[in-house]
Amino acid sequence: MSFPVLPTTAFVDPFGQNRAAIEDIFQTVTQAILNHLTQAGKRAPLPQPVTTAYPAIPEQPGAIADLLAPLQTIMAESMNPAHPGYLGHMDPLPTTASILGDWVAAALNNNMLSVEMSPVLSRLEPLLMAEMAQIFGLGDRAGGLLVSGGTLANLQALTLARNVKLGCGQSGLARQPSPLILASEMAHSSIQKAAMILGLGLEGVGLVPTNANAQMQPDALETLIRAALAEGKRPFAVVATAGTTVTGNIDPLVEIHRIAQAYDLWFHVDAAYGGAIAFSPTHRHRLAGIEQADSITFNPQKWLYVTKTCASVLFRDMALLDSHFRIAAPYMNAEPRWTNLGEISVQGTRHPDVLKLWLSLQHLGKAGYAALVDGSYALTAVMVEHLRQRSDLSLATEPEMNLVCFRGCPPHLAPDRWDGWNAQAQQRLLKQAQVFLSLPRLRGHLWLKAVLLNPFTTAGHLAPLFDQLDDWLRQG
Amino acid sequence: MSFPVLPTTAFVDPFGQNRAAIEDIFQTVTQAILNHLTQAGKRAPLPQPVTTAYPAIPEQPGAIADLLAPLQTIMAESMNPAHPGYLGHMDPLPTTASILGDWVAAALNNNMLSVEMSPVLSRLEPLLMAEMAQIFGLGDRAGGLLVSGGTLANLQALTLARNVKLGCGQSGLARQPSPLILASEMAHSSIQKAAMILGLGLEGVGLVPTNANAQMQPDALETLIRAALAEGKRPFAVVATAGTTVTGNIDPLVEIHRIAQAYDLWFHVDAAYGGAIAFSPTHRHRLAGIEQADSITFNPQKWLYVTKTCASVLFRDMALLDSHFRIAAPYMNAEPRWTNLGEISVQGTRHPDVLKLWLSLQHLGKAGYAALVDGSYALTAVMVEHLRQRSDLSLATEPEMNLVCFRGCPPHLAPDRWDGWNAQAQQRLLKQAQVFLSLPRLRGHLWLKAVLLNPFTTAGHLAPLFDQLDDWLRQG
Repeated sequence: MSFPVLPTTAFVDPFGQNRAAIEDIFQTVTQAILNHLTQAGKRAPLPQPVTTAYPAIPEQPGAIADLLAPLQTIMAESMNPAHPGYLGHMDPLPTTASILGDWVAAALNNNMLSVEMSPVLSRLEPLLMAEMAQIFGLGDRAGGLLVSGGTLANLQALTLARNVKLGCGQSGLARQPSPLILASEMAHSSIQKAAMILGLGLEGVGLVPTNANAQMQPDALETLIRAALAEGKRPFAVVATAGTTVTGNIDPLVEIHRIAQAYDLWFHVDAAYGGAIAFSPTHRHRLAGIEQADSITFNPQKWLYVTKTCASVLFRDMALLDSHFRIAAPYMNAEPRWTNLGEISVQGTRHPDVLKLWLSLQHLGKAGYAALVDGSYALTAVMVEHLRQRSDLSLATEPEMNLVCFRGCPPHLAPDRWDGWNAQAQQRLLKQAQVFLSLPRLRGHLWLKAVLLNPFTTAGHLAPLFDQLDDWLRQG
Repeated sequence: MSFPVLPTTAFVDPFGQNRAAIEDIFQTVTQAILNHLTQAGKRAPLPQPVTTAYPAIPEQPGAIADLLAPLQTIMAESMNPAHPGYLGHMDPLPTTASILGDWVAAALNNNMLSVEMSPVLSRLEPLLMAEMAQIFGLGDRAGGLLVSGGTLANLQALTLARNVKLGCGQSGLARQPSPLILASEMAHSSIQKAAMILGLGLEGVGLVPTNANAQMQPDALETLIRAALAEGKRPFAVVATAGTTVTGNIDPLVEIHRIAQAYDLWFHVDAAYGGAIAFSPTHRHRLAGIEQADSITFNPQKWLYVTKTCASVLFRDMALLDSHFRIAAPYMNAEPRWTNLGEISVQGTRHPDVLKLWLSLQHLGKAGYAALVDGSYALTAVMVEHLRQRSDLSLATEPEMNLVCFRGCPPHLAPDRWDGWNAQAQQRLLKQAQVFLSLPRLRGHLWLKAVLLNPFTTAGHLAPLFDQLDDWLRQG
C-alpha cells in the first residue's frame, strides 16, 4: 500500500506487513472492553454524560492510540445494561457469544445482500430462520429473515400483508379504497410508523380498545372491522401483540385469529419481546394461537440477549415473498439453490446478524434460554409479591411476562400529584439507589416500569428497592 | 447469577467473577481474527463454501471452545474483500478503526432508539451528521441520520419526499391521483423497492432513458414529467444517481435540479457510492449540483471503508422530519435538547453505526480519505489505459469513478457468443488468477465489472490480469 499520508494502521495489511502494530491495537482495545464489562457493576446503570462536544472531523490523520482516551470516555458514559440495577427497558446485557459474533462479523465485513457477498452467512440465515419458525409451529412452508430492528420486521410483515391482500405491488394504492390495519391501543408505535410509510397514513391504523390488563378486546376488534367495512374501507390485517411495550401483556391470540379468518385479514403477531417464551416449556402455553400467524415479529435482541440489532420476521409461507415482494437486482449473481436475501427484504445491504444469533443459540442451547426465561418469571413473582403487600403501590396490569409496571399512590398526596411523585421517585432511585426504572406514560399517567431481564439481578436487589420506596411513600 | 444449566461464560459477569475465562475467550477469538485478516492475501478472494450443513439449535448448552472450529470454517469460507484480487463489488476491506468501533459497540449494546438508551451516541450522531451534510454543502438547516443500509436511506428520503409533496402522512394515498418518482433506468433497484413499499407500486417509478455514458437524459426526464402530468399522475420526486451500480457514472445534477425546481419535485441524489469523492479536493467538482439536493443518500460502508452497515441519509432541512415524518413513542423519556432518533427514522431500535464512522474519520482524517479516493482514480486510469490499448476489450461507459465495466469481444467468435465468453472468463479469472470480477447484466449483455477500491491492489496486479485476458481472447 503506497499512501504516504495514511496511518500505517489504517487497514490490516492482507499480507501481514503491519501485524505487530495491529495486534497491539487489538490487544489494547480488547483489554479496555474486558475492563469495561467486568466492572459494569461498579458504574452507574445509566450515566449522565458530562461530555457535550466531540472532536470534529480532522483534516489530517491521527494516531490510533490517541483515540483510546475518547473511546474510554464514550464507554464510561454509555447506557450500562449489564448493571443489576438497570431495569428500565427491554435492553439486555448481551451474551458473550453474540459479542464475539459481532467481532468476527466486523472483521469479515460480508454483506447479506447476496449469496456471492456472504457465501456462508446467506446460507446459514435461511436454515436458522426455518428452525426458528418451527419453534413457533409455523409449519412446512415457513421461514424468515433477520432485519435491523423490530420496526423493520413489522414494516416487512405489513408490506407483504398489504401486497397479498390488496394486490397493490404493481399499481399502488392510489384510486383504491382506504386500507386499514387493526391493532390494539397498546400496540407498538412501529405499527403507526409502518402505516405511514406504507402509504396508508396514520388514519390507516384502527386502534382497538384494551381491557384492564392491556389486552385487545376481541368484541371491540370485530366492531371496528364492521364499522370500517360499512364506511367503504378495506381492513386487510390485524396485529396482535405478545408482550406489550409498557406492561408485557399478551393479546388473546386464538380469538383474534378466529376473527382474522372470518374477515380474511392477514394475522400478524408482534412478539418482538414475548416470542422468547417459546423457548420455555413451562411458559410457552401463554403464546397459544401464535402457530396460526401469517407472520411473526420476534427479536432475539431482547429476551434472547443477543447484541443489537437482531430482529426477525417469520412467515408462514415464504413463497409469498417471491410472488408479492421480490425486487430483482440484476447486478447480482444468482445461485441456483440459494436466495439473494436482499431481493426479498426491506433492506438491501445488511449486516450478518445471523452469526451472533447462531453462536448464542449454540452456546446457551434451548435449555439455557429456558432457564433464563423461567428465572425471569421467578424474579417477577418476587417483585409482584412485594407490590401486593403494599396498598400504596399499584400495578398497572397483571404481569404475564417479566415486565412489572406500577406506580406509587402516596396517601398523603392528592392523586393529581402522584405523577410528580413517581417522576421524582424514578430520579431518586437512579441517583441514590443505583436502580434505573423507566417512566412510561400509560392511560394518561406516569408509571414506573421494571424489565426483569438481567440474570445478575436477584431478589436481594429488589428488597432494598421497596424499602426505599416505602420510606419515600411515608414522607408523602 | 444462579442458573446451574447455563455455561459460566454465557455472560460477562458485571462484577468480574468470570474474568479469567472471558479474557481467555476474548484472546482466542481476537487471535483468530488477527490471523484471518493478516493472511487474507493467501486465501481466495471469493471462496466457494464446501460446508452445506450447519449444526441445528441444540437442546443443551455447549462449551464456547467448541464453537471455535465452526467459526474458523465460517471465516475461511466467507467473502474475502481484503484480497487485492477482490474487485467485484462495492464491498471494501474495512478500516481498522471501524472494526474496533464495532467491537466496542457490541460490548456496550446501546440502542439508537432514544437518548436514554444511548446517552453518548445519540448525541454524537446528529453532530457528526450535521458535519457530513456540510461536506456536501447542504446549508445551515441540514443534518442527517445513519440507517442500516442504502436501501433504507433511499426509503427514508422518498418517504419524506412523498409526505412533504403530497401531504399524505395523515390520510394516505387512497383515493388520490397516482404519485410518480422519476429515476434513470440505471438507478439502483432500491428505488423500485421504495416505491413498492411506499404504496406507489412498481408503476410508481418512471424510468428515464440514459445516454451512452449511463447518465440520465434531462430532455427525456422533462418529457416523462409532462406525459405523466397529462395522464393525471402526480410526479413528486426525481432521483439522480451519483455513482451508478454497474458503471459508476454520475447523472447531470445541475440540469436535473433545474427541472426538479421547475416542476416542484423533491430532488434526491443517490450518492450511496459516489458521495465519497466529496472528500477529494481534486475530484469533488464531479458532484457539482449536489449542494442543491433536498436529500442525499451517502454510504460510508462503501468508499469510506467503514464496516457494514454504515449508510446515511442527509436532509437539507432536518425540521421536515419533525413536521412530516415523526412518530412519537410515549414509552421513551424525552430529553429537552436532543432528539430520540427512533422517532424520526424508518428504524426504531438501531445499531450505533456512528461510533465506527466517527473513529474512522478521526483516524484517517479528510486528507487520508482524499488520498484513498485519488489513489483509486489513479489506478482506474491505469486500467482504462490497458483497455484502450485493446480493440477486443470494450468499455461499457467512460468511467467517472473507480468502476470499470468492460467485456471481451473475441473476434473469432460470433457476437452472440460473447456473453458466454465473458461468463467463462469471469470464472477462469477467479479460479486461475485469483481475481474476482463480477458479471453484471447491462443493456442485455453480460459484462465484467471491476471496482478499484482496495488500497492494496496496485498496477502490478492489473498487468497480469490483462495478459491472461489477451491469452484467452487469442484462443477465441
